[in-house]
Amino acid sequence: MTSLQYFQTPFPTKPSRTNLNKQKTNIKVNNVSTVLPSTLVGNASGRKVFRTTRHDASASMMTDFDYVEEILPSGRPNIPTKKQLVDPVRQGVITEGGVGYKQTVVIRSYEVGADKTATLESILNLLQETALNHVWVSGLLGNGFGATHGMVRNKLIWVVTRMQLQVDQYPIWGEVMEVETWVGASGRHGMRRDWLLRSLATGQVYACATSTWVMMNQDTRRLSKMPEEVRAEISPWFIEKKHSTPEKIMKLGNNAKYINHSLKPKRSDLDMNHHVNNVKYVGWMLETIPEVFLESHQLTSITLQYRRECGSSDTVQSLCEPDDEDGILMERTEEESCINVCHENSVQVEVLQDKPVKFPLSYTHLLQITGELKIEEIVRGRTTWKRNSSTLPTL
Amino acid sequence: MTSLQYFQTPFPTKPSRTNLNKQKTNIKVNNVSTVLPSTLVGNASGRKVFRTTRHDASASMMTDFDYVEEILPSGRPNIPTKKQLVDPVRQGVITEGGVGYKQTVVIRSYEVGADKTATLESILNLLQETALNHVWVSGLLGNGFGATHGMVRNKLIWVVTRMQLQVDQYPIWGEVMEVETWVGASGRHGMRRDWLLRSLATGQVYACATSTWVMMNQDTRRLSKMPEEVRAEISPWFIEKKHSTPEKIMKLGNNAKYINHSLKPKRSDLDMNHHVNNVKYVGWMLETIPEVFLESHQLTSITLQYRRECGSSDTVQSLCEPDDEDGILMERTEEESCINVCHENSVQVEVLQDKPVKFPLSYTHLLQITGELKIEEIVRGRTTWKRNSSTLPTL
Repeated sequence: MTSLQYFQTPFPTKPSRTNLNKQKTNIKVNNVSTVLPSTLVGNASGRKVFRTTRHDASASMMTDFDYVEEILPSGRPNIPTKKQLVDPVRQGVITEGGVGYKQTVVIRSYEVGADKTATLESILNLLQETALNHVWVSGLLGNGFGATHGMVRNKLIWVVTRMQLQVDQYPIWGEVMEVETWVGASGRHGMRRDWLLRSLATGQVYACATSTWVMMNQDTRRLSKMPEEVRAEISPWFIEKKHSTPEKIMKLGNNAKYINHSLKPKRSDLDMNHHVNNVKYVGWMLETIPEVFLESHQLTSITLQYRRECGSSDTVQSLCEPDDEDGILMERTEEESCINVCHENSVQVEVLQDKPVKFPLSYTHLLQITGELKIEEIVRGRTTWKRNSSTLPTL
Repeated sequence: MTSLQYFQTPFPTKPSRTNLNKQKTNIKVNNVSTVLPSTLVGNASGRKVFRTTRHDASASMMTDFDYVEEILPSGRPNIPTKKQLVDPVRQGVITEGGVGYKQTVVIRSYEVGADKTATLESILNLLQETALNHVWVSGLLGNGFGATHGMVRNKLIWVVTRMQLQVDQYPIWGEVMEVETWVGASGRHGMRRDWLLRSLATGQVYACATSTWVMMNQDTRRLSKMPEEVRAEISPWFIEKKHSTPEKIMKLGNNAKYINHSLKPKRSDLDMNHHVNNVKYVGWMLETIPEVFLESHQLTSITLQYRRECGSSDTVQSLCEPDDEDGILMERTEEESCINVCHENSVQVEVLQDKPVKFPLSYTHLLQITGELKIEEIVRGRTTWKRNSSTLPTL
């Protein structure tokens, strides 16, 4: 059985026999960087266990911890079966006294749009990625998309029922960010997952998000209660924090102002759970908003309430309705020649091509499956927007 | 002026005043990990210069090098203006005696398809990302999409004219890969860029790629000669390696077997150069191949020859023609009821739903802009395929 490993240094090369047992781990906890050698303490059945001593300055103590690396005979990585306090290749570390997780990410060239800021889809992808890496390092991950060993035994998968994201500032290309995530209980059978996205250089919070998850049987596709063995696995990781009440989103009718018909999922839109990935939904929603609005505005928040999953053979309709905040922001002329801009409780009037134009600042969204027999809701959404600072008129 | 910084440890947190001058750099070169303290040797105009000593075992010598971190007053990162031998946050390091670059990447959850292997688009994205990071750490990057300072002064951008990728094995979700890249001359006015994608655990090469780039004036959108000042910047980075001759790709006519009409770029398809990103083209090409073929096959190579750029207002047509290798592989019945599978020089016959089916193993592709006045080629392509091992029939 081949048993290779990853290195804990930032710039690893192919391992040589001579240095397998001379690992060093560079850990930074509570602003004190401590580099101490690891010792290989076990090596059996494709597992390598290194013991490392961590110096935790805030607690003024030295703690031993194991970093376990598992490689399959094929050379492919195995999912850790034991909690990892650090994951050097993922640039991740356990936080919140042992139950949270944070990870350093650099905003990549293909994660930004033409304006060089990260796209909303990229941010949502990074949230998903860090959530899954949290489960990965926890040692709980079964052979699924975030599913624990107990969930795999019960043929259960996670499905998201609600996602709420607020973006105050979009990171730019090359910016180094830190994504922190943690989980908590949501009712008796659900789980809440929260995130913070911070600038690593300044600590400034750019975005925060919260979400609710429940379990679904992967064969019957029906929602399930949380089995006791799964509760025993995940509840020690729960953190209780006070949260805002989820807002209700009204259901749009078929008379919505903007409708995209006949959207078809592509092969590449399916994720490991074999349904359309949540992030794809957001793309469909945003594409339904008029181009002229998207060009001059930036999304500041999005709320999604999921109703059912969407498969590869479904045909989807995306509906979108701008807000009519007390009749001030919306004036429904056919030409949409007049758009007002509400900015921080004031109403601003902008002249575009010699015509005054009115803009709403919120949209309600609905994605639904249009089948032969009936129409079924996939997800309801709300988005709020602010004017791009570069195009904000000076009054 | 605010002057903050990134940390060179894998798990950075917000910097505190007390540890700004106590940096440690963990470098791994030629299989010897050396951790030595860095010293702050300069701190002016938003720049922090750390001097670190590297122990290079193969050369049995100690070398000093500087790791320069630049932060804008806004707290946003600045592009380095000096060559960086290591980039801890990007997990990158200069190779090839100072002119190549390699980077560790973990295959992320949203970079894989339903089968948990990295998609072709993800691999192409990672090649782009490491190429740009190579320019980033070189200190040559101007304020553009890989453009050097000299290119920015001359209003030039890079455009790709050819890209060739061979994939022997697709990395899976969570797999830790190493992408290595380097550049060379291509004729008098072009640049070649090559890549290798390796498993970090085993060193096995999964994919390799080569590409050719020329310069374009960003205003006139016309190709340009390489100015001498740009040659002086980039030619010291050139490595000469022997390369295969690019294959010619025939131009498809409008009688191609499969045609996708009326493809429209979306806002999110545009990159920092304000044209449709190359990776998007590949998506359009592959979507034109019949679903039944994609489900049972894996791409093993792709060659792209770019003719002109595609803007956001263009309407695109994707044409695709399967090979008819000596009449063995293709039988053009309307129902396509009979598909043969050629696998490693043998012809295999598979029965799908009680019908024998014939499959070609190569496709020729063409993307073209269908304007009112004329049709213009964007890119020609060739793809080759092998049968998925999981669906390979036993004969």
